Amino acid sequence: MKVRKGSSSREYKTVWMKRTEIFLIDQRKLPEKFEVFKTKDYKETTKAIKDMVVRGAPAIGVTASYGITQAALDFQGKDLKKFFSHLEKAKKSIINTRPTAFDLFYAVDKMIISLQKAESVQKAKNIAVSASRDYAKRSEDNCRKIGVFGNKLIKNKDKILTHCNAGALGCVDYGTALAPLRIAHSKGKKIFVWVDETRPRLQGAKLTSWELLNEGIEHRIIADNAAGYFMQKGEVDLCIVGADRIAMNGDFANKIGTYEKAVLAKENGIPFYVAAPLTTFDRNCKSGKDIKIEERSEDEVLFIDKKRIAPKNAKARNPAFDVTPAKFVTAYITEKGIFKPSEIKRII
Amino acid sequence: MKVRKGSSSREYKTVWMKRTEIFLIDQRKLPEKFEVFKTKDYKETTKAIKDMVVRGAPAIGVTASYGITQAALDFQGKDLKKFFSHLEKAKKSIINTRPTAFDLFYAVDKMIISLQKAESVQKAKNIAVSASRDYAKRSEDNCRKIGVFGNKLIKNKDKILTHCNAGALGCVDYGTALAPLRIAHSKGKKIFVWVDETRPRLQGAKLTSWELLNEGIEHRIIADNAAGYFMQKGEVDLCIVGADRIAMNGDFANKIGTYEKAVLAKENGIPFYVAAPLTTFDRNCKSGKDIKIEERSEDEVLFIDKKRIAPKNAKARNPAFDVTPAKFVTAYITEKGIFKPSEIKRII
Repeated sequence: MKVRKGSSSREYKTVWMKRTEIFLIDQRKLPEKFEVFKTKDYKETTKAIKDMVVRGAPAIGVTASYGITQAALDFQGKDLKKFFSHLEKAKKSIINTRPTAFDLFYAVDKMIISLQKAESVQKAKNIAVSASRDYAKRSEDNCRKIGVFGNKLIKNKDKILTHCNAGALGCVDYGTALAPLRIAHSKGKKIFVWVDETRPRLQGAKLTSWELLNEGIEHRIIADNAAGYFMQKGEVDLCIVGADRIAMNGDFANKIGTYEKAVLAKENGIPFYVAAPLTTFDRNCKSGKDIKIEERSEDEVLFIDKKRIAPKNAKARNPAFDVTPAKFVTAYITEKGIFKPSEIKRII
Repeated sequence: MKVRKGSSSREYKTVWMKRTEIFLIDQRKLPEKFEVFKTKDYKETTKAIKDMVVRGAPAIGVTASYGITQAALDFQGKDLKKFFSHLEKAKKSIINTRPTAFDLFYAVDKMIISLQKAESVQKAKNIAVSASRDYAKRSEDNCRKIGVFGNKLIKNKDKILTHCNAGALGCVDYGTALAPLRIAHSKGKKIFVWVDETRPRLQGAKLTSWELLNEGIEHRIIADNAAGYFMQKGEVDLCIVGADRIAMNGDFANKIGTYEKAVLAKENGIPFYVAAPLTTFDRNCKSGKDIKIEERSEDEVLFIDKKRIAPKNAKARNPAFDVTPAKFVTAYITEKGIFKPSEIKRII
């Protein structure tokens, strides 16, 4: 993704690994400061995922896969059994950070399975390095392909609403929901984006707007309350959001408020697309009822940027995700093409 | 309304007048500080309405009516014609503050009409004092009656969702949407309230929560994005909101986001009530299309409590109200009883 600094700009990935260190664009600091956060071992990586230095299902998946590689490289000795019990410990630590994003579990399992064929610890370490690098590369490629497929849905002068940040910052690059917008913009289409600010953590106002400014894509931030207003006024041509986990019946979990926007899109006859790689589809999840929703600290609602907005003694509830039933999804945009919720079982 | 200070509590009105001065609970300072704001003349009152020291359609109406009284008392001389042209100037200034709340226009017109029968400036001044006092008293009585009627819709242990602040702070006392909750609570019903924080100005998190804490009514603040989630989970039994202007076909304008919650309530089979005095019904307004929507400064979205949340150079849109079509309204709760949108024409 493009990151502007003054009059020049540079290309960045959201997450990358060099030797034993993982580098992450620190998303807690944006948009005020652009900083790269470094983790030296899987414990620091676990903490970085938990503390939301990195967020977004695909980016969490890639970070977790690099975290397993850190654990593999960390290991001292040649005993394969001890090596795998060390990895199991790392796996538990890493997956115990965020319950909703499926990519996290998928990436970690995939890593462990690919190491199981190794005949020695040294070979397993080599496999870990290349497997996690491949996983990241494939994740990036998938996002680019999502962009290419999604671009077909976007007409010149379309006004597109998006919720939260399903951008390059939530992936390795390109993004999921933002990938089609990047490709459409790069092809010369004039597009306009409504950016839901996305309370409580304001990922829309802080991250999506930052990405779109860097790319030079025209947009306006709106209070989450105003999305319905602009739909009703005919000022939204389509909606594209990301997903944290997609069930086999087409229900999907995504940032809190996604369900509201999906219901409103249907009420106003506006197509509602979900952009996600196939790694976000959970074979073991029959329907949205099986998706565990993370409830985060009430302080995310009661405080904004460390300032308390509510009266002393007031309490809050803070579900971080919601589940949107399949009937509100027009289609899924994936790296394998665009398909309807009813087609999931055939494709996965 | 009850205002707690440490272990004791005192009764307050949102707005009152003594001699030539208007007193207003300064709503910009809550919940951090409880302060009473004083205006000496109609120009200061105009500014107080514009700056949102006072907000909420009924409270704005009462403040405007007191503002006309200030203008009447200010006038020097005995020439009735000059007196009325002075009042016209005051009227223009006062109604030019906020375009959406109908009570503002209603109250000012009602005052001017009631003064027109006066035979002398002195008599007009006397009428102004008693007419505005009556208007305030009636406004308070109406809210209490709304509470008594609305209470009938609330069962023991109901969970009620409300949006923005349609509380005592938006009226003289009791509130509109909060009046039924106050009465239900005072009758010993155990109720629970979901308080939408109501971005961009956070009137739910700051004002509604403050009122409910003062009354000792159990509640939780939620991000506006989470209202749909709790409806979907079956944790909302009914919704009650206020209104800024109600059209003759039953469409109504209220704080931005109301339309979203109404659509979601319908989708989830949850009754959606609008509590408002008859002064909020606009005879000259056929449908929601005729309601002018105020668009406020983008800074209300880009900044929270003076801290910028969005990147430098990012822009926002900020409609302050939206229009909810009549089909989403289960019933109106008024001082004359509860009735359906289709019954408006008969009753007004």
